Amino acid sequence: MTTGGSGREALAADDPLAPARAAEQEHDRLTVSQGLAALSLDALASVAYGPEAIVVVLAVAGAHGLGFTLPVTLAIAGLLGFLTFSYRQVIAAFPEGGGAYAVAGKYLGKNVALVAAASLIIDYVLNVAVSVSAGVAALTSAYPSLYGDRVWLCLAVLLLITGINLRGVAESAKAFIVPTVLFIVAIFAVILFGLFRSHPATAPSGHVVAAASAENVGVLLLLKAFASGCSALTGVEAIANAVPTFRKPRVKRAQRTESALGALLGLMLIGLALLIRKFHVAPDSSKTVLAQLTDAALGHNAAFFGVQFVTMILLALAANTSFGGMPVLTSLLARDNYAPHVFALRADRQVYRWGVLILAGLAAILLAVAKGDTQTLVPVFAIGVFIGFTISQFGMVRHWRRERSPGWRGRAVINGTGAVLTFAALVIELISKFTEGGWLVVVIVPLLVLGMLRVHTAYRIVGEVLGLGHKPEPAVEQQVLVVVPVGAVSRLTQEAMSAALSLGDGVIAVTVRYSDEDDAAECARLQAEWNAWQPDVPLEVLTTHKRSLTRPMVDYLNRLAISAPASPGGFERIMVLIPEVEPRRAWHRLLHNQRGVVLDRAIRRHTEAIVCRMRFHIKGW
Amino acid sequence: MTTGGSGREALAADDPLAPARAAEQEHDRLTVSQGLAALSLDALASVAYGPEAIVVVLAVAGAHGLGFTLPVTLAIAGLLGFLTFSYRQVIAAFPEGGGAYAVAGKYLGKNVALVAAASLIIDYVLNVAVSVSAGVAALTSAYPSLYGDRVWLCLAVLLLITGINLRGVAESAKAFIVPTVLFIVAIFAVILFGLFRSHPATAPSGHVVAAASAENVGVLLLLKAFASGCSALTGVEAIANAVPTFRKPRVKRAQRTESALGALLGLMLIGLALLIRKFHVAPDSSKTVLAQLTDAALGHNAAFFGVQFVTMILLALAANTSFGGMPVLTSLLARDNYAPHVFALRADRQVYRWGVLILAGLAAILLAVAKGDTQTLVPVFAIGVFIGFTISQFGMVRHWRRERSPGWRGRAVINGTGAVLTFAALVIELISKFTEGGWLVVVIVPLLVLGMLRVHTAYRIVGEVLGLGHKPEPAVEQQVLVVVPVGAVSRLTQEAMSAALSLGDGVIAVTVRYSDEDDAAECARLQAEWNAWQPDVPLEVLTTHKRSLTRPMVDYLNRLAISAPASPGGFERIMVLIPEVEPRRAWHRLLHNQRGVVLDRAIRRHTEAIVCRMRFHIKGW
Repeated sequence: MTTGGSGREALAADDPLAPARAAEQEHDRLTVSQGLAALSLDALASVAYGPEAIVVVLAVAGAHGLGFTLPVTLAIAGLLGFLTFSYRQVIAAFPEGGGAYAVAGKYLGKNVALVAAASLIIDYVLNVAVSVSAGVAALTSAYPSLYGDRVWLCLAVLLLITGINLRGVAESAKAFIVPTVLFIVAIFAVILFGLFRSHPATAPSGHVVAAASAENVGVLLLLKAFASGCSALTGVEAIANAVPTFRKPRVKRAQRTESALGALLGLMLIGLALLIRKFHVAPDSSKTVLAQLTDAALGHNAAFFGVQFVTMILLALAANTSFGGMPVLTSLLARDNYAPHVFALRADRQVYRWGVLILAGLAAILLAVAKGDTQTLVPVFAIGVFIGFTISQFGMVRHWRRERSPGWRGRAVINGTGAVLTFAALVIELISKFTEGGWLVVVIVPLLVLGMLRVHTAYRIVGEVLGLGHKPEPAVEQQVLVVVPVGAVSRLTQEAMSAALSLGDGVIAVTVRYSDEDDAAECARLQAEWNAWQPDVPLEVLTTHKRSLTRPMVDYLNRLAISAPASPGGFERIMVLIPEVEPRRAWHRLLHNQRGVVLDRAIRRHTEAIVCRMRFHIKGW
Repeated sequence: MTTGGSGREALAADDPLAPARAAEQEHDRLTVSQGLAALSLDALASVAYGPEAIVVVLAVAGAHGLGFTLPVTLAIAGLLGFLTFSYRQVIAAFPEGGGAYAVAGKYLGKNVALVAAASLIIDYVLNVAVSVSAGVAALTSAYPSLYGDRVWLCLAVLLLITGINLRGVAESAKAFIVPTVLFIVAIFAVILFGLFRSHPATAPSGHVVAAASAENVGVLLLLKAFASGCSALTGVEAIANAVPTFRKPRVKRAQRTESALGALLGLMLIGLALLIRKFHVAPDSSKTVLAQLTDAALGHNAAFFGVQFVTMILLALAANTSFGGMPVLTSLLARDNYAPHVFALRADRQVYRWGVLILAGLAAILLAVAKGDTQTLVPVFAIGVFIGFTISQFGMVRHWRRERSPGWRGRAVINGTGAVLTFAALVIELISKFTEGGWLVVVIVPLLVLGMLRVHTAYRIVGEVLGLGHKPEPAVEQQVLVVVPVGAVSRLTQEAMSAALSLGDGVIAVTVRYSDEDDAAECARLQAEWNAWQPDVPLEVLTTHKRSLTRPMVDYLNRLAISAPASPGGFERIMVLIPEVEPRRAWHRLLHNQRGVVLDRAIRRHTEAIVCRMRFHIKGW
């Protein structure tokens, strides 16, 4: 899910400072250990909820069921091994960064690519929600009295992360190394201390439910446990997406990082599964499995609180990675005309902020609906992630078949096996979790794809209408009549008239008056002020019986449009210049320029005139 | 609360058709009976909840307490008599229409006028909520099975009224006559049939609660009952606000209407109180007092359902009057610079719709909070209304003292007594209902006043800066350089270039490119297309290292601004013309012109250039 961000990849072709800058930038890029910190953080953090997802499913079948935790974990570790190999190959094949969207776009066609993109969008949102809730679960495991407030804690953590992202953080891989290393050390400490301890230091708090048919562990249950546990594999694709952010030799370093991630993650998962087996840990909704294992291995002391704290920090950072990854994806979609082009401007603060707020808002909804419970969200998360896995693996098979480089068959077999395995896992997940939120993915993915296709069609039609790629008619200079709506004689009027005289070949000021006594007096005053000012521009008074500003203006402009070209030396174009004051404060926008909005809209709708709302900075403001 | 709307008062001074139109318009104005229908409708409708408000309070003291219903009603009727006389005087003194805001503004200073305006705004909202909930109560009294869904029914009725107002209704006094007459007939039928009947046709459903100290009816309880019952007087000021909508002789007709309203309302209140006493009616949360009385007087038959239905319709129309009255008030406030000027454009659909939606939204919140219960809302409603009453009466005292016309002392005494009485009622209401929502008025009125004062200050400062009322410097024609941001060569570019060449004395096209390889290729293509097109305008390429569109544009414009005037024959003004496509459908706004928004904002903030976002209708669209 993480991405270093293509914001860094800048190499000017005709820049005199380019070599020095290139060297400097090369130094800014990632080494293997930095890459592990920056890009694998959320994959590693998923050991905080992945093993628990297995245990929660198997506990349905009582103690006997929990006995299958290790075999299921080994199966998942096996899948991880395949995925690691597969993604090493993706890295080699896509040194420019090969997310599921890119791979599918190249080898499986646009529709599959859009499915990949839709599932990635879901993943970014779910990653935030799952990581935040798992982080809070780590906290409430240490301080059980906070358990009742976990939804509020989740929202508070989300608010914090959102706030930091709104302010804009300069992501630095180095800042991530310390917490990542601490987390890895902590988990291995738990595993090693636990394995060398004969009895648990603190008895696990989870109790095995006496299952109705405790001995009956069906295949379906095992598959379900496998599917849920696969949530531990989320994030292993992140390195392959971000090869360009590595230091040279990029591909080698990225591959080594991928291998290191696979090895570390696999060892952690197996180690934790061994401990679960050894200490007979069962799920406990108020204390995570990892917390129970830590307690059993290290004792309920400062070390326990330290591990919980480090876990929470790492999960918060994992949630944060979505805020970096989402803009990259949406800008790719925008570039391909599948998302509003504004997303391509992702470096722009305003645009970026909207993205952050949307992502945070959706995650907040998920957290509220799931009442802050990680295990409610995890199954859906796994589905989204495995759609991406499956698509990239299939894409790679196509890649090897098309390329047929030496040894392509072996590589295709690896990716093909990966594809089949991840697809099988996906089907298992979908079937076993369909009623528990899985249907949501089935509904949302097509909706997102449909939306992206509609955006694409709209852009295609616009492109055709605009004649993109064709040489347009030559530009022609035309005689322009500038019409300025006027309500008073002021410094704004002066600015507007100066601008109108400077721009147009002819200028008319227009004012609308209502046909009652009040307005007659006011209108006479305006006329007098106008004549006293003498701007050499006629003031046209439009009288109306209805209290409408727009109707008489529109009618007048349409009359002008008909008469104008007929007259000798007439105007070929009418521009309405609506003068506005630049508001001094944000809330002043409520006070000014509202007429302009209304007028602008009506004129654009009902006339052929060009409207120009011009905001003036008035001096002395 | 009703107002005929100053939209009708139209007499053109220099209009050739004026005499004929005037006669026609005179015919459109109100007679006494039409005025009663159009302007007194909500005052009359308040008998549906006013008597109940008394009974609800007195029932706390059991049957003995309920025995005081008639005396309390007589006191209220006495106050009504005073108010009727007072408002006849207001009508004579303010033939141009004298709402509390106008009277206070003239005689008590701006701050008191703003308090009056704030309380009126609260009243408009509460009138909607109270009338809707009382109307639904009339319905659920007839169909008790609907009682559980009353909140949803309230919101549905509100939605209906809002929908009708959004579509825009041509209010016609004549349309209101039928339901108003039917309602008056129905109430008097209930009273007369009830009085001539020895035993109730149907026994009242309300049961007297055995009060702890049933015999102890304190003064405070009586005052509280009086205060609540005063809600029956809401709306008696509406005629005085709308004198200009009457047919000539306006003042006479309006005064007669006011008297008729006073007499009808007084008779109804006393008649219903007599029935309450005769039939020993007690409050019943699921069946209104009026419904119980109707049942007792007419029997549980078609007549009963008819009365409930007519009551519901009249209450819905009463709620509707707020949608006519609120825009008049806000336009007066806007004219006096106390509300955003946009409210002065109240005939404009778009503006009006916003007002309707805000009013409906606030009423919906109140209905939801009060769970659709009229008696929860009534006390707060009475407070707001009596603020207005008190202020206009005090204003009238000031009026007579200043005018000293013959017999002024007698008139001042009448209005003075009215002022003291309504003020006393207001104090009683505030004290007795403070914890039951009264505090809300105490909080919101000052906040609204403060807001209006801030708006006023902001407009004053703008007026000074703009030099309103002073002759500005003469307008000067300047040499304008038009800068056009360009991203592609298309028909939009052609339109933009044509406009730029037509408007400016010099034109430069500008494009921003990022210093990476991708963009270099794209930029070269743009340059080639540009040269092929040959628009005789130079294309300036701004290279940037950061992925920002706005920064290089802003820097470039600031550089231009410094160099431009220095050069011989240089430009005195820079205009940035941002070409945009007029979106074909509403949702296409998400796709287009977003860059324009971002660019517009940045340029206005950081440069002196004038920005003009120009939307073009592209042919073939």
